[in-house]
Amino acid sequence: MGKKEPVTTDLKINLDRVKNDVYTIGHYGYNPDDKGIYRQGFSDEDMKLRHWFRKYMEQAGLAASIDAVGNVIGRLEDPQEPNHKTLLIGSHLDSVPAGGMFDGVLGVVAGLECIRVLKENNVPLKHAVEVIGTSEEEGRFGGMLGSQALTGNLKLDWLEKAKDSSGELLRDAMARQQFHYWEAMDLARDPDKLAGFLELHIEQGPVLEAEHQQIGVVEGISGVFKWLIKLIGKPDHAGTAPMNLRSDAFMGVADFAHEISRIINEEGTEKSRLTIGQVELKPGFAHTVPGQVDFTLVGRDMSEEVMHGLANSCRKVLSAIARNHKLMFEYEEMSWLAPKYCSPEMMAILEKHSKALGYKTIVMPSGAGHDAQFFTDITPTGLLFIPSVGGVSHAPDEWSHWHDVEKGCNVLLNSVLEIVAKYSVRNSEVTF
Amino acid sequence: MGKKEPVTTDLKINLDRVKNDVYTIGHYGYNPDDKGIYRQGFSDEDMKLRHWFRKYMEQAGLAASIDAVGNVIGRLEDPQEPNHKTLLIGSHLDSVPAGGMFDGVLGVVAGLECIRVLKENNVPLKHAVEVIGTSEEEGRFGGMLGSQALTGNLKLDWLEKAKDSSGELLRDAMARQQFHYWEAMDLARDPDKLAGFLELHIEQGPVLEAEHQQIGVVEGISGVFKWLIKLIGKPDHAGTAPMNLRSDAFMGVADFAHEISRIINEEGTEKSRLTIGQVELKPGFAHTVPGQVDFTLVGRDMSEEVMHGLANSCRKVLSAIARNHKLMFEYEEMSWLAPKYCSPEMMAILEKHSKALGYKTIVMPSGAGHDAQFFTDITPTGLLFIPSVGGVSHAPDEWSHWHDVEKGCNVLLNSVLEIVAKYSVRNSEVTF
Repeated sequence: MGKKEPVTTDLKINLDRVKNDVYTIGHYGYNPDDKGIYRQGFSDEDMKLRHWFRKYMEQAGLAASIDAVGNVIGRLEDPQEPNHKTLLIGSHLDSVPAGGMFDGVLGVVAGLECIRVLKENNVPLKHAVEVIGTSEEEGRFGGMLGSQALTGNLKLDWLEKAKDSSGELLRDAMARQQFHYWEAMDLARDPDKLAGFLELHIEQGPVLEAEHQQIGVVEGISGVFKWLIKLIGKPDHAGTAPMNLRSDAFMGVADFAHEISRIINEEGTEKSRLTIGQVELKPGFAHTVPGQVDFTLVGRDMSEEVMHGLANSCRKVLSAIARNHKLMFEYEEMSWLAPKYCSPEMMAILEKHSKALGYKTIVMPSGAGHDAQFFTDITPTGLLFIPSVGGVSHAPDEWSHWHDVEKGCNVLLNSVLEIVAKYSVRNSEVTF
Repeated sequence: MGKKEPVTTDLKINLDRVKNDVYTIGHYGYNPDDKGIYRQGFSDEDMKLRHWFRKYMEQAGLAASIDAVGNVIGRLEDPQEPNHKTLLIGSHLDSVPAGGMFDGVLGVVAGLECIRVLKENNVPLKHAVEVIGTSEEEGRFGGMLGSQALTGNLKLDWLEKAKDSSGELLRDAMARQQFHYWEAMDLARDPDKLAGFLELHIEQGPVLEAEHQQIGVVEGISGVFKWLIKLIGKPDHAGTAPMNLRSDAFMGVADFAHEISRIINEEGTEKSRLTIGQVELKPGFAHTVPGQVDFTLVGRDMSEEVMHGLANSCRKVLSAIARNHKLMFEYEEMSWLAPKYCSPEMMAILEKHSKALGYKTIVMPSGAGHDAQFFTDITPTGLLFIPSVGGVSHAPDEWSHWHDVEKGCNVLLNSVLEIVAKYSVRNSEVTF
């Protein structure tokens, strides 16, 4: 038989194995008191898991290793194909403090399961395939170390200075686990040798559930800016200062909050977000008119042009409000990250297989950061979401239904097959 | 010559003596680093001042003593008038941490100066007159101990349990200064033996200055309620949660703040105040939609009926806002203090003399608490304000111009003369 275009197959992932892996991994760092998972980057629990997972992948017949930043990698390739590229499938194995069982882990387990299916079915490979459990994605030290290392997105200066919230240096935390931080610079993968990056992740938001969708094909990671804003008025005694003689800083931020929906209506899209998440009043006494408010504004959109529109409008509105309330307005742009776009080819593959499998599928942005965002810079990248119950994540009650997990894994499997299989695969048999 | 109605006289206070006393007292507890005064109730500095002030009053020819709670009292009486009553003039000698030079002290110094003028001019007294430097008015232990003791407004239970913000018990702080807390219960003055209470105080607010007035005759201390309010929504990732699927607790308090001016327009008076002084977001992270906000609302007015109107309206508005934002609304009334009214007779005396002296005079409420508020319950009480520069108080840069101080003292002097002098006084000579 001749070559055929790869199409959606009858190969299926084994949900029991996926469940077993997710539960097994969920024991690492589990805290029975709050039911949360504590597996922060470079913690002992995180490292224990990585060592176990490497062995576990070896037992599954993969060539497995832990790299210089703790990424744990399992590889399957056809030694007869010397010039092949490599498809990476992965997500992270670390967790936030008191995190949930699915965040990151699902994407690693799903990647391993896809490779197990390839191997069991002796699928002939035109590309190698690797599953990667990345390290330190949750930003204990303020970055996504594992993915940044693999995509050549690290600076030595940052590696030397990065600290966690307790003040511990990244390099010290790495040294304690026998890693040498400067070796992180050597891990960048050659884009010419990559066939792409695929990641399955829980949505960590409420959209798929609210819209009764089963699969989200992610178009990109929205850009984000963070401002630290100060409105400075005059602290006054809450009894002696008449309402019309106050320079009440809190009234300034309240008025601004009130304008946010209008700003988004005028300048934004349905993908825009503007959030005031942190507010500090000074002096912050019940009987004192607030003389100053320091607050954060985080803005997001999938278009950098829209982000500029939102930012300009916020600046104008804040200036006007400050004038009206006799306040001084200062702001500092703490960060400005441009949107990152998934590759149209990868999106098309994911969407095609999801729909072919009969799943309700939408294209959507990701408001949260993921390993995938760094890979968009060097290789065709695809990111797949399944629903999070109640939109909850980064919490012990994070959950995704197993039937949704199964769907996500099967979309991933078929996409992987399309990319790496030498010939089309159908009816659980390789045809060539 | 026969008896005449007392009228405004040519007797004048001596501003140099007043200045000297204010500056001298301002050295007690002065901190050269921040220029603030640290003379909290029952601190060593506070007690040093009281002992000095007692001696200072003795040198001025007064019978002086320190009572069982630290009130320092100087008395002038005509021993020939056995059935006289006593006019009390006073304010407090303690300060807030990092306080100013005038708060409280001015009223004590002015009272002493009035009595010195009476004495120097041999004004025949129909009533005795006392100047009182009250203790612990600033509420280190949550009350106004000195005035509460003198007006019979103390509970033994409270004396035993009251603590400062560091957790020190009032009774321990008193014991360290050789006071026995239970003796505080014995200090209540017999209302039948009182001719009234007069207090001169800096305004601690911006009204007199803003309205270009020189003397404020206080009609009363506004009533005040304090609520602790919780709006409870759902914390969400600021990136993944679309604007329309959020239960953003901060948006709730912002909407409420926005309604405050409408609530006052509809339910309040020009004397109404509604203040949000303390706001805590939970979790309070820049990248998380606030799931809960705890905030204080302090409401004030001179009419208890208006206070109820404001409170009811706030409750309704908060309920409606909570519904709109999918939030839960809880509140706790931490305190409800009814307004206290100065006596119309005392107000008339103060206003008459202020206008007779040619000063721009207004009748106004006091939004801050003062010793006078407890005396309103037992004796005709008058309270007089002079302007505070910039409305500033409870801060090192608290200031009142000496020409305003002089005016306030002279209004006080003439009012005292009207109340205690046996005959009218004119042209620096007593005529009888």
